[in-house]
Amino acid sequence: MYKNPKETEYASWWNKTISDAGLADNRYQLKGFFVWMPYGFSIMKNIRNKWDYLFALNGIQEMYFPLLVPVEYASRNASWWNSFKSQAFYALGYEETEKNAFLRPTGEPAMYPMFSTWIRSHRDLPLRIYETVSSFRNETKSTKTFVRDVEIGPWYEIHTCHATREEAENEIKLAIKMNEELFLDAAIASIKVRKPPADCFPGSVGAVEFYTTLNDKLIENASCNNLGQAYAKAFDIAFTDKDEQKKPVWQTCTGNGERILAAIIGNHSDDKGIVVPPKIAPLQAALIIINSPQEEVLDKIDLGIDKSKILILTAKAFSEIGELRFKAERMGIPARIEIGPKELLASEATLISRAGNKKSVPFKNLKAELAKLLEKLQNDLYDASKKELFGRIKECDKIEEAEKAQVALVGWCGKTECSDWIKTKTKKDLIGMTLEIEKKKCIWCGEDGEKTYFSAAY
Amino acid sequence: MYKNPKETEYASWWNKTISDAGLADNRYQLKGFFVWMPYGFSIMKNIRNKWDYLFALNGIQEMYFPLLVPVEYASRNASWWNSFKSQAFYALGYEETEKNAFLRPTGEPAMYPMFSTWIRSHRDLPLRIYETVSSFRNETKSTKTFVRDVEIGPWYEIHTCHATREEAENEIKLAIKMNEELFLDAAIASIKVRKPPADCFPGSVGAVEFYTTLNDKLIENASCNNLGQAYAKAFDIAFTDKDEQKKPVWQTCTGNGERILAAIIGNHSDDKGIVVPPKIAPLQAALIIINSPQEEVLDKIDLGIDKSKILILTAKAFSEIGELRFKAERMGIPARIEIGPKELLASEATLISRAGNKKSVPFKNLKAELAKLLEKLQNDLYDASKKELFGRIKECDKIEEAEKAQVALVGWCGKTECSDWIKTKTKKDLIGMTLEIEKKKCIWCGEDGEKTYFSAAY
Repeated sequence: MYKNPKETEYASWWNKTISDAGLADNRYQLKGFFVWMPYGFSIMKNIRNKWDYLFALNGIQEMYFPLLVPVEYASRNASWWNSFKSQAFYALGYEETEKNAFLRPTGEPAMYPMFSTWIRSHRDLPLRIYETVSSFRNETKSTKTFVRDVEIGPWYEIHTCHATREEAENEIKLAIKMNEELFLDAAIASIKVRKPPADCFPGSVGAVEFYTTLNDKLIENASCNNLGQAYAKAFDIAFTDKDEQKKPVWQTCTGNGERILAAIIGNHSDDKGIVVPPKIAPLQAALIIINSPQEEVLDKIDLGIDKSKILILTAKAFSEIGELRFKAERMGIPARIEIGPKELLASEATLISRAGNKKSVPFKNLKAELAKLLEKLQNDLYDASKKELFGRIKECDKIEEAEKAQVALVGWCGKTECSDWIKTKTKKDLIGMTLEIEKKKCIWCGEDGEKTYFSAAY
Repeated sequence: MYKNPKETEYASWWNKTISDAGLADNRYQLKGFFVWMPYGFSIMKNIRNKWDYLFALNGIQEMYFPLLVPVEYASRNASWWNSFKSQAFYALGYEETEKNAFLRPTGEPAMYPMFSTWIRSHRDLPLRIYETVSSFRNETKSTKTFVRDVEIGPWYEIHTCHATREEAENEIKLAIKMNEELFLDAAIASIKVRKPPADCFPGSVGAVEFYTTLNDKLIENASCNNLGQAYAKAFDIAFTDKDEQKKPVWQTCTGNGERILAAIIGNHSDDKGIVVPPKIAPLQAALIIINSPQEEVLDKIDLGIDKSKILILTAKAFSEIGELRFKAERMGIPARIEIGPKELLASEATLISRAGNKKSVPFKNLKAELAKLLEKLQNDLYDASKKELFGRIKECDKIEEAEKAQVALVGWCGKTECSDWIKTKTKKDLIGMTLEIEKKKCIWCGEDGEKTYFSAAY
């Protein structure tokens, strides 16, 4: 993990690292918009493939809703519309002045009026769908590529409707499990928190959010929302149950996006650049061939990996090797294999992990050793991420401890006056309560409370 | 092919067929926007997977550019901007009034200013990239799902830059080849035409377009544009060549999208619904189990197909079979397999092609017979599409023949006054010249000309 306490230095390191790795170009002339470069997009596609796999496995179907949302749809749910309309981009035809449609900031207002036409009876339930699409939030705050953009994409959202509250709660559990699996492939440790009601997504009754680390702060990186029946009532999504009664459905929605890539950059980088976890790396190894015939080298070695996942770089002279090594390191390619005339003669390659370890490996062992390296790197990255995140958390009984802790785990009674006081005193944000309820007296008023995380956050 | 000469009847058949098959829901309250239903989206994803495969095979890299384009970028190429600005949706922030960005109608103005920053030397060439994304055209004409929408998506565009004119021309040839392969999987016959200069994409010097049939007309269904150096000059995309001279690049762009699905519906449908060609069908077979234990049936048969590609439908009584058959037919599932108590006893299934052929097949031959059925259906669909398209084309020496022909192939000298006369007289549009130049005297002025297609078109 690249560590730099000053946010301004971190910001310039961030932009340089993204650009050097070939992830994005943020010189596009609209603030908060950037161009996905081929290599960055291929990493994001691997993440997306994992989502698609998990959703298919769990019977959640993919759909696509229009990017433009009629204002009429959105205004059916006042709490959603009030919280998003200041961020809306209206889509205005050439000679039109009426603001009757806007670009989607999230999916609800496009989807739910349609759900209302599709659902009639309990036989139409559950409805479980997702889409992967750009979202647009015209926020005026400072932007940061992959962390806070105006066009947020690719963004995935699962939306589900159920006949009972219990089913919706089980869906949330499944969403948590799927996100955990995704984060595991990305080798990212996270804490899961329950948000207090006031901090939930507009209109929802509960939310579980994943937080990961970025520089010295925490960052929200996935959210699983229990929407209860508020949206169903606003959008008239109702069904006739087995008892012939008309009832509003119970809903959930879950979202995640490019911030997984942000977490990868934030967690798995050093001064040389990023490290892409093998499970989502489009390129598993960089093969550097030095002053030797490429065909002959390729004939003699077997890496046990599809050729499209190997970046082949050739150096005509030893003086060129440095630049090639830097390139492979900046791109975060998990393994580097170097073969020159000496290695070719000895039928032995130099195998270097992006973590730094280096050894000579006979050609005949390359396949096995490379597989071992990739597995070890994947595990090591996850362990380092866990150590970093959990090393920051300190359970505190006194406010002075909480002030000093990076992430303070304190008792909180649930009252806003107490959390406001804790926030002011510790200069930290309220992150959320532990996933399973753990009782602890409020650090301010001393009344019954729950363990709650406070930390600086993006 | 569903045949109905009246456009209004065709339109209502079209909407019903799309809705019954579960492809799209066009009740979304913005004209020209619709919701992709899971089954329709999965067919489109298979088409997209084929694109992705072809592009990867040919070394074209995927990127993603923002959906919003700065007006400043677009106005650098006056001919492009003049032809698209009346269709532009401006994106207007909540309290903003300045129209400084709009939703992409095509990719050029978002991409080319970036190309100009990326390309410096001949070593940066060729640049060959694509993206798959929605395009927005705020056209006022009547919309038709998959054929003419306001949000056109998923839309793919390849954009390439080259050092020489020859390389650009070879790229066009490759683009034609890739589109041919895609159309073959979709079992769609096409004619390829060269557009006369006046009909080319704004700013381009040549275009090859694919036309397919839809009802009684032709429809443009892919275009491969030779942009020459006009965009390069407008956007300052230049490189230093080996001779140390600064030169504008040569460019191409190729596009295609949801109209492939439109062609599939238009070509491969009957009164019962669509027929999805096996090579792009997400579901290869519908297994209808009648009044029998599902587990037992599944245990005894081997279809040789991944289970996720079989739609399993169960009927508790013989009276329910009809509705299940209709469902499989409406969805255009290539094969139907029916197994009831009688079949189970005889270890024999009824195998029915979506084309209508039906036979009894012993369980042990099911795998081989199903594979044969799928291959035959794929070929038959393509043959029928070819027969339909080429059966319409008539080479004409006299204008009276051209008036009567569905697609008239006549000589044309290239002059607008002559094509205007042919269009008026035959009530047909100019489609384009044959791909390879074929000389033929102009049917109006009698001067030297080329064979040119005229037809009613969407």
